[in-house]
Amino acid sequence: MFRDEFSLRSRERVEIIDITSRLEGIVEKSGLRDGFVLAYTGHVTACLTINENDRELLEDIKENLLRLAPIDPHLVNSRYRHNEKYSSMSGEQNTHAHILATLMKPSIIVPIEKGRLRLGTWQSLFFFELDGPRSRNVQVQVWG
Amino acid sequence: MFRDEFSLRSRERVEIIDITSRLEGIVEKSGLRDGFVLAYTGHVTACLTINENDRELLEDIKENLLRLAPIDPHLVNSRYRHNEKYSSMSGEQNTHAHILATLMKPSIIVPIEKGRLRLGTWQSLFFFELDGPRSRNVQVQVWG
Amino acid sequence: MFRDEFSLRSRERVEIIDITSRLEGIVEKSGLRDGFVLAYTGHVTACLTINENDRELLEDIKENLLRLAPIDPHLVNSRYRHNEKYSSMSGEQNTHAHILATLMKPSIIVPIEKGRLRLGTWQSLFFFELDGPRSRNVQVQVWG
Repeated sequence: MFRDEFSLRSRERVEIIDITSRLEGIVEKSGLRDGFVLAYTGHVTACLTINENDRELLEDIKENLLRLAPIDPHLVNSRYRHNEKYSSMSGEQNTHAHILATLMKPSIIVPIEKGRLRLGTWQSLFFFELDGPRSRNVQVQVWG
Repeated sequence: MFRDEFSLRSRERVEIIDITSRLEGIVEKSGLRDGFVLAYTGHVTACLTINENDRELLEDIKENLLRLAPIDPHLVNSRYRHNEKYSSMSGEQNTHAHILATLMKPSIIVPIEKGRLRLGTWQSLFFFELDGPRSRNVQVQVWG
Repeated sequence: MFRDEFSLRSRERVEIIDITSRLEGIVEKSGLRDGFVLAYTGHVTACLTINENDRELLEDIKENLLRLAPIDPHLVNSRYRHNEKYSSMSGEQNTHAHILATLMKPSIIVPIEKGRLRLGTWQSLFFFELDGPRSRNVQVQVWG
């Protein structure tokens, strides 16, 4: 098993950041040929996921997930007790981010074959910032 | 690889139960220093997830996920064929739980470093009961 | 580690296909007794998940997830830029599928004990087609 980690900085409140090449670099550095990579982020208002890196699609994904768990709960006739408890702290108005991170979870796992991530043609790996901008960290384990 | 499992009992219909210390105990017992822990629950109306153990937040998460897949489908102008099929069985009025468990899945995986779960500052590990109260089981594997 | 893969063909636009016996067959072929199976699909409009194989329930799951991210975004007063960009391509009217696959992700992981998947009584493993009919592929690794 080979272990590494990296940092990144999000620049928007909600932002989908492509981390495919960073994970590919770690797999290369590991020298392992067959196995899998496990990426994990130690945050509760962000998560990792996998889909297609298409600019319009990423906008659609952000907009439609925020439709399900909006930053402003009044839009769906809901309320966020967590936001209310910390109503004086602007950095804690992030219940939407906790809800979406609970649904999506902080890890992804991808097979490795012949020393490379075995992604499908259209797949990219993403860090999904749900309450930025912030400095974030991703832990990586390569098993093989 | 070290294997263990544990039981728990939920006390409410929908309940988020912190299992961090139970998983930490198993990692300690394993004696493994570096790797990951895989937790898996063999149920179809519950799941495992990761987020922050804040009382108000957990209420928000439950309420807002049940807004997306409510116990009573009429609230969203939907219907649940599964509930209708078993309309005489009060224990089977749980389609909402199946839907949310299908979205969230029954496993979590967390890195281990120096013999400890490498969780972020605010992360806790949860058993998410979606159709309690019931006796439940969690299987655990520690790899390292 | 033992590696294998298999193909399948979906026959509907949105379809939940039971792949439990195919994964069980691969675990048997591997000869491994204890560990886990990792299944991964290299697609961005499909995913893997776990729940109960009940015909009415699977209809409920499809219908209610499509209620959250409908094929036609106007039903929820949303729009899909990705569909609009490719408005002349009937095969690219699939933003709903990308959104749901981003939420659910392309992998599942299940413990193995005594040479068998250690599933709960009601659990089945599913390939979840979100934009069929298509030919699809699932990669499998058995660790033990």
